[in-house]
Amino acid sequence: MREIGLDDLADIATGAAILGTGGGGDPYIGRLMARAALRENGPVKLTPLAELPDDAVVLPVASMGAPTVMVEKLPAADELSNAVEALCGYLGRRPTHLACAEAGGVNSLIPVAAAARTGLPLIDADGMGRAFPELQMFVPGLYGVKASPMAMSDDKGNRAVIHTVDNHWTERLARAATVEMGGSSTTALYAMTGRQAREYMVPGTLSLCAELGALVERHRTTGDTAEAVAERLGGRVLFTGKVLDVERRTVGGFARGTARLTDGSAELRLSFQNEHLLAELDGVPVATTPDLICVLDQQTGVPVTTEGTRYGQRVTVLVAPCDPRWHTPEGLALVGPRYFGYDLDPVTT
Amino acid sequence: MREIGLDDLADIATGAAILGTGGGGDPYIGRLMARAALRENGPVKLTPLAELPDDAVVLPVASMGAPTVMVEKLPAADELSNAVEALCGYLGRRPTHLACAEAGGVNSLIPVAAAARTGLPLIDADGMGRAFPELQMFVPGLYGVKASPMAMSDDKGNRAVIHTVDNHWTERLARAATVEMGGSSTTALYAMTGRQAREYMVPGTLSLCAELGALVERHRTTGDTAEAVAERLGGRVLFTGKVLDVERRTVGGFARGTARLTDGSAELRLSFQNEHLLAELDGVPVATTPDLICVLDQQTGVPVTTEGTRYGQRVTVLVAPCDPRWHTPEGLALVGPRYFGYDLDPVTT
Repeated sequence: MREIGLDDLADIATGAAILGTGGGGDPYIGRLMARAALRENGPVKLTPLAELPDDAVVLPVASMGAPTVMVEKLPAADELSNAVEALCGYLGRRPTHLACAEAGGVNSLIPVAAAARTGLPLIDADGMGRAFPELQMFVPGLYGVKASPMAMSDDKGNRAVIHTVDNHWTERLARAATVEMGGSSTTALYAMTGRQAREYMVPGTLSLCAELGALVERHRTTGDTAEAVAERLGGRVLFTGKVLDVERRTVGGFARGTARLTDGSAELRLSFQNEHLLAELDGVPVATTPDLICVLDQQTGVPVTTEGTRYGQRVTVLVAPCDPRWHTPEGLALVGPRYFGYDLDPVTT
Repeated sequence: MREIGLDDLADIATGAAILGTGGGGDPYIGRLMARAALRENGPVKLTPLAELPDDAVVLPVASMGAPTVMVEKLPAADELSNAVEALCGYLGRRPTHLACAEAGGVNSLIPVAAAARTGLPLIDADGMGRAFPELQMFVPGLYGVKASPMAMSDDKGNRAVIHTVDNHWTERLARAATVEMGGSSTTALYAMTGRQAREYMVPGTLSLCAELGALVERHRTTGDTAEAVAERLGGRVLFTGKVLDVERRTVGGFARGTARLTDGSAELRLSFQNEHLLAELDGVPVATTPDLICVLDQQTGVPVTTEGTRYGQRVTVLVAPCDPRWHTPEGLALVGPRYFGYDLDPVTT
């Protein structure tokens, strides 16, 4: 895949929402945003990670905030270029390529829209291989790439640049600003060289999203999408059942909560903070962050986001292995179950 | 006064705390900070407002946050230059002069320290003619000078640049960041030309602070400081009595509350948000923002800050007229009693 055109958006959005593990934004919203930008500016050039020159300046862009808010408060058209421009102003130089910070229904498509609007190529990669709720959860960050200087923008036209001593402080200040900006913002962060991107980013994410989206489309009528997706990702189906109950709060710029599923006899409990982080089968942890816990509609195979989960939905839950760098001690310190307050060891898929 | 040396700091700090009307920071802290900077770097050149060239780049600097926090959390030495440097980086040019954003025990002295550390001259002026709790309350702001791009820094080494659509949004985002930074921060904001500064800043504030401080010193043993200060400022003494009760909360980055004073028969109630905003004598408003409500120790004449007010203190309260531009409709919309939630017309002193 060397270019992203209007025809590719639906598959990328669907596949990205699968890798988004419930977070990363609603694929419909992401698709609408990218479609508007591509209609105005034409297709976006996609650069494979391996072809990136050493001295490229790569700038990931992403939406920050609670998915619950983003469903109603779409980024304004200027918001994308404002974040990029604010960072350029502060850095005193311009990116040669944009990138996805994470995989997700909005966060894989916002960079497509930003690339279309700025005329920059996009790299076929992301920084997590999935979605995670906080910005310091970024594979290149494990190897010393700094989140800041980071730029933010909102729908009103406000901009901010944050330059902090470490990535946790970037998260903290950016989160407070995001809450003040109305619960969601557009960000440009983790500026890095082409060489750093080649070594540390997760390769091929946008191609994988397109492939997963096509898989869902192909299996839409056969009802076995979850099995096909699990196989492609090297994972397995955990549970099929009906949503019994969802408890969800929008707190501190996050959508937090739990969902209970039943298949008539056993009960699966999903805990999330924007993304699904823990699956417990009758009280026993069967899948944990950093592995991917994905929820798909049982009939259509379409991914269900944490803010879209409703009583009565019939869904299939699958688990798939994450990028192996997340299972290192440094990776688990950032995104393991204990970071999120679950007192248990990670279950390896 | 053409230069500020170590000998001038005590008087300036005292005088600034009088104009600070209870806010603007503790004069002892301000003096300590400026002393350290002057000992290392020598005296600071003071430029009269009238001598400022049209094309000068004037940058006001100030501490932001609750005075209650600043008493315990002093700005780090780098914090001052970090805020200035962050803004220079974003603007792509350097200031030729620094300025005081407001008058106050800390906020008249922080710019002295910043001028000493950066080697830049300071202008003899400020942006309020007193202290006010929110950053959009700035005389040049009434004439279209923008608070942003604005830079902030904290004691940890974190920096942020905020660039917003209006001054209210600057206040909102900067306040949220200040709370996250631990309740106080150092800011550089309202960058303006020499011509704008000459037209809109309040002239002579640092000279006036030094003069008021000397006045307090001279009257320290005679017990009539408040009368002398009131006369110099064209105001009058409102009340002399004992502090009966203080109710104070640190909320949203502000010190808010009320103090009740008695002289044995009548009761004066002072309401504050960092600064004293309203004085009611037996329930009748006798002085209101934007005029200056100043509280001095009855014996020594030393100004008492809102966070330093304690049960049993014997104090004299005076009121003095503010810069007349605050009494225009635009000025009152920003700093009149109704903005602060008191449903009454301003009392003119």
